[in-house]
Amino acid sequence: MEEALISCGNPSSLHAGGRAAALLLRKARGQVAALAGVRLDEIFFTAGGTESNAWALRGLAEPARGRGKHLILSAVEHLSVLQTAREMEKEGWSVTLIPVDRTGRVDPSAVEGALTSHTVLVSVQWANPEVGTLQPIAEIARRVKSRGVLFHTDAVAAAGRVSLEIAALPIDAVSLASGPLGGPPGAGALVLRRGVRIQPLFVGGTQEEGRRAGTENLVGLAGFGAAAERAAKELPVFPGKVLPLRERLVRGILKLVSEAVFNGDPTDRLPGHLSISFPGADAEALVLALDREGVSVGLGSACSSKAVKASHVLKAMGVGDPQALGTVTLTWGPETAAEEVDRFLEILPRALDVIGKEPIRK
Amino acid sequence: MEEALISCGNPSSLHAGGRAAALLLRKARGQVAALAGVRLDEIFFTAGGTESNAWALRGLAEPARGRGKHLILSAVEHLSVLQTAREMEKEGWSVTLIPVDRTGRVDPSAVEGALTSHTVLVSVQWANPEVGTLQPIAEIARRVKSRGVLFHTDAVAAAGRVSLEIAALPIDAVSLASGPLGGPPGAGALVLRRGVRIQPLFVGGTQEEGRRAGTENLVGLAGFGAAAERAAKELPVFPGKVLPLRERLVRGILKLVSEAVFNGDPTDRLPGHLSISFPGADAEALVLALDREGVSVGLGSACSSKAVKASHVLKAMGVGDPQALGTVTLTWGPETAAEEVDRFLEILPRALDVIGKEPIRK
Repeated sequence: MEEALISCGNPSSLHAGGRAAALLLRKARGQVAALAGVRLDEIFFTAGGTESNAWALRGLAEPARGRGKHLILSAVEHLSVLQTAREMEKEGWSVTLIPVDRTGRVDPSAVEGALTSHTVLVSVQWANPEVGTLQPIAEIARRVKSRGVLFHTDAVAAAGRVSLEIAALPIDAVSLASGPLGGPPGAGALVLRRGVRIQPLFVGGTQEEGRRAGTENLVGLAGFGAAAERAAKELPVFPGKVLPLRERLVRGILKLVSEAVFNGDPTDRLPGHLSISFPGADAEALVLALDREGVSVGLGSACSSKAVKASHVLKAMGVGDPQALGTVTLTWGPETAAEEVDRFLEILPRALDVIGKEPIRK
Repeated sequence: MEEALISCGNPSSLHAGGRAAALLLRKARGQVAALAGVRLDEIFFTAGGTESNAWALRGLAEPARGRGKHLILSAVEHLSVLQTAREMEKEGWSVTLIPVDRTGRVDPSAVEGALTSHTVLVSVQWANPEVGTLQPIAEIARRVKSRGVLFHTDAVAAAGRVSLEIAALPIDAVSLASGPLGGPPGAGALVLRRGVRIQPLFVGGTQEEGRRAGTENLVGLAGFGAAAERAAKELPVFPGKVLPLRERLVRGILKLVSEAVFNGDPTDRLPGHLSISFPGADAEALVLALDREGVSVGLGSACSSKAVKASHVLKAMGVGDPQALGTVTLTWGPETAAEEVDRFLEILPRALDVIGKEPIRK
């Protein structure tokens, strides 16, 4: 990012600064392509996961509408997917939401059963950012593609946590974002497999092969590339390093709060991720109380603190309000030490005590 | 930007890192608002000028379509405006392009004459980035708004070069971008005056008051804010510092190349900006030859080196191909010294000589 800050060129310019910027951009593209397991020319940079998801839905569906105007999504997609689809409904598209089981898992045969001759696109996330459940993506993709329907997956939460190897799967488009990899927010990509038709959201420039106009956010994309490279390097050791801490956390939390509930699939889930409900507690107050002790945890939907209502994901899983509203998300990485887990377990009862006595912002 | 790099928080998060990020974001919003001369809550951040323009056209037109489906633009708008409108034409909108005179100027009465009872939006740029001509924005806005029609202006090229003071004008929306201010590319804003209805392009998050979902590009926006603050500070002295160099450049160039032509309005134009045609020369080769001597100049449309055809702006002004294809754009700022102008005048004949002998990439 510092190199990009100094260069500060426009990758489309002819002069020397422009060429240096183009090289930095190419490097970032290669780093992201390596993490995704695709070719360099299949990476199209965006301003983040939200844009990638909106672009995938609108951009893939539009050129295929000759077939019909039907979309299929899971009920636990990120809100950028669900609400884009809701906008498209106003424009005449019909949308089928596939329910999930108690663990947040989508049944591939339910997706297949929802396919009609009018279906143009199916979008099911790779992993759920709130509860950590991994979806049977390969199986869903296989069933969708065998019917000649486009398949998109939002892999924003999965990238860097599980191996993607997209080229080996029958997937047309994949959303990625820099922020969840530890890179700067405001940078992302849409992986578009060769030959997939997409309508641009932004026109009027030749950037990204004319598919996404606008001078590139070079600093952010350089950071995205670096984060992708680090994530790809850590990936082989990631589960081995983070899984033992999960056991330590789960056992420790249950010992302190016997009624604590762990949401999502117990095994088929993101490593380094726990969704924990303290039924009856005020999750927002808990986040603040833990923060005062130096521990940052996420609130229900990780993306927005302003949504102080039960997460649509937990609702779709059949979780009631008292449990859903007391839910926080804990994430950790290979650099997290066992001592930090112990310190969290030491802080947690104090924080719960504080919010039990004087609930904040209730 | 360095502060934002260190903070690296999500402005929507509840914890301490999130609050620090929210403060940085608020600072940037204030800096951009000050440059634009509007209230802080009228700034909506985007990923750059292209997104701002696409959003303004689609987002303002859509909620107003009850009135009709007619847009009015000038023929010399940035391609992100013109091509977005072309996409909208495919979706049933009709678009009127207002021609310009030899100086690239739009006649306000021509805009008024094109208004119909079905017109929902008029978009005319504040200044042309290629030829530097300033449009009579106040007069156009007044005529458009008196007919109850929405008015948007792309001020990407004008911001930081001329005073905007948007609050004093009857304008609904204004596009701004970081890059042309010397800030990092990939950051921009749409100014939306209070009460103006717009449909979001990106949904599924509460950022930017729910009008533009997606975790913010904090590093880029911090840079945009800093660039806006510097530009606002320099603005009062900008013309005084850069105008004397224009005379030195024009006289010097005409002395060297008598057939050189200066495009755009000779007086009502961006300070620190010259569009120079060397009829019959290959502008792309000239850019490269000058670059080898350490001088960076722009090619026709500054945004893309891949468009090696005559600029739509020069065409709309009635400039023929031999002149248009030999056109470069020269920009300079208050920090540019007279000696640098003299050095450019010393290099120019050598560069022209080089491309006369061995045209590159012809």
